[in-house]
Amino acid sequence: MSEKRTEIGQLGEFGLIDKLSEGFSNTNSETALGIGDDAALIDSGDHYTVLSTDMLLEGIHFDLSFMPLQHLGYKAVAVNVSDIAAMNAVPKQITVSLGLSNRFSVEAVEELYKGVRAACDSFKVDLVGGDTTSSGSGLVISVTAVGVADKSLISKRSGAQIDDVICVTGDLGGAYMGLQVLEREKQVFMANPNMTPQLEKYDYIVQRQLRPEARMDIIHELKDLKVVPSAMIDVSDGLASELFHISKQSQVGMKIYEDKLPIDKQTYDTGYELNIDATTATLNGGEDYELLFTVSKADMEKLKKHPDIHFIGYVQEQSAGNIMITKGEREVALQAQGWNHFNN
Amino acid sequence: MSEKRTEIGQLGEFGLIDKLSEGFSNTNSETALGIGDDAALIDSGDHYTVLSTDMLLEGIHFDLSFMPLQHLGYKAVAVNVSDIAAMNAVPKQITVSLGLSNRFSVEAVEELYKGVRAACDSFKVDLVGGDTTSSGSGLVISVTAVGVADKSLISKRSGAQIDDVICVTGDLGGAYMGLQVLEREKQVFMANPNMTPQLEKYDYIVQRQLRPEARMDIIHELKDLKVVPSAMIDVSDGLASELFHISKQSQVGMKIYEDKLPIDKQTYDTGYELNIDATTATLNGGEDYELLFTVSKADMEKLKKHPDIHFIGYVQEQSAGNIMITKGEREVALQAQGWNHFNN
Repeated sequence: MSEKRTEIGQLGEFGLIDKLSEGFSNTNSETALGIGDDAALIDSGDHYTVLSTDMLLEGIHFDLSFMPLQHLGYKAVAVNVSDIAAMNAVPKQITVSLGLSNRFSVEAVEELYKGVRAACDSFKVDLVGGDTTSSGSGLVISVTAVGVADKSLISKRSGAQIDDVICVTGDLGGAYMGLQVLEREKQVFMANPNMTPQLEKYDYIVQRQLRPEARMDIIHELKDLKVVPSAMIDVSDGLASELFHISKQSQVGMKIYEDKLPIDKQTYDTGYELNIDATTATLNGGEDYELLFTVSKADMEKLKKHPDIHFIGYVQEQSAGNIMITKGEREVALQAQGWNHFNN
Repeated sequence: MSEKRTEIGQLGEFGLIDKLSEGFSNTNSETALGIGDDAALIDSGDHYTVLSTDMLLEGIHFDLSFMPLQHLGYKAVAVNVSDIAAMNAVPKQITVSLGLSNRFSVEAVEELYKGVRAACDSFKVDLVGGDTTSSGSGLVISVTAVGVADKSLISKRSGAQIDDVICVTGDLGGAYMGLQVLEREKQVFMANPNMTPQLEKYDYIVQRQLRPEARMDIIHELKDLKVVPSAMIDVSDGLASELFHISKQSQVGMKIYEDKLPIDKQTYDTGYELNIDATTATLNGGEDYELLFTVSKADMEKLKKHPDIHFIGYVQEQSAGNIMITKGEREVALQAQGWNHFNN
């Protein structure tokens, strides 16, 4: 073992992945796309097999004091399906591996699997395997999702072209704001266990946090509209971080407009109450699991009437950087903060 | 949440998996084989895509006080490749997800990845993705392996036929015996940190535990010899447990001979020293990652000269049960003990 000690937080998740990937190269002709996108692509002859995996750990990614096990099971599947969606692919199978401390009973695991099953039904995927083992402390869930895609329909992060329109689905910032509410109610409850959490007025954003949806509906609609995004990614770490991923891999700059960001009224109102700027929550909060993608101006015309696809800016020259035009018409440089579990 | 509380240990890993699988059915035509074998099969047109996943947790599956991180990285890949091999398939890609507590430095993770890379080179697989996140305590590794197989070459657990010959590769019981030595040396070291572990005379069995190989060499040789096993499984939980899996899924009985079990001299000698029966270690120890398979008597002829494939018994009527003829020519019923992490 080397004597030098570098903390992982110094590199961050993406820096660590870059460093670890350095020594690897692909040797099999079937490997069409490796590390660095939402999912890997495997050449299966007339189509791609699409592969993605995510690990969720108790105390890092979820807090069981306010996350019902059923929702957790649903979310663990949804976030992986979302990665398959982000390649413009259709999910088909998942595996679910669980590490369980002796705190968890069979009944608790059955609750979790109710959520897994609901997600399998909702996203039309088959549970085909996994691993179940004990854990020294807490709950670990690792999900792998497998999908299929026509070779002509794949959207990578690397295909954005200058003058393409930047699109985002649904609304953003809500999942982060929902988490802030849940954390606050947890503190209140811990201080006084007789208090009942007051969550009614936060129902939408709490659901955004606890039971996110993968936007497979959008993938099917894009196909019906014959639109193939030039680049696509899902919003897991915050809009800014995802814009930087497309920017870096497509070697372009991104220009977005603050007044075009789709933010729900409940997200705004709660932000006002909690003194959290809704735009900051949108840019840096993450966990919305909406789709961020770029399309040509011709394709934009086909999407204009879609009620849930929003045009938030344009792809520009790489040298022009990644910027946001604020509501006050100032130009600010975006920061690729995202969500760094190693520093939080 | 239900008021009833059933401990997971009451069901065991396989009981839990059976219970959790109950509510699931496959809806996609591409899903050719789901839960219940070494790996799942996905119909990719002219071939199967083969999918397997395993999760390893610190303190449950490995002890870093005697497991070097490089070996751990190698082993995490090898055990998944072994599951692909057990379908008579060829591995092509892996994903590796890590959960890391702040005890681990970047340099430590690089050590681990040296082992992952060595395994990728050894088994000719490409690392195509994964997830890296922080963990509240300890190290978690989740690996998913993807392979390909000709449809005509697949070996499931369910194909064993009466009168088939039961074969096993390599030697068994060594990995378990190696673990006992490592545990003993750890106790000695903890009692007196000035003691240097004496492992030279246990080199083979210690390596069996710390750096197991997946038997891809056997898979390639079977293909060259034009032998397709009627059923196959890898020996991860102990020979008895694996025999029961084939027995259950093929609806047959298994008859093995104790004097035919391939056990290395070092495993015997160490068993004598530690007062552990080598046959018991073979039947119930696990982690040897050898291949257990059945072949027709005609195919057996083709394997007779293979130095590393051993014939240990015969497939019999289901009603005759799963039995072993001891060296003393007694007939004993096998117990499907395997390795239950929830009770150990």
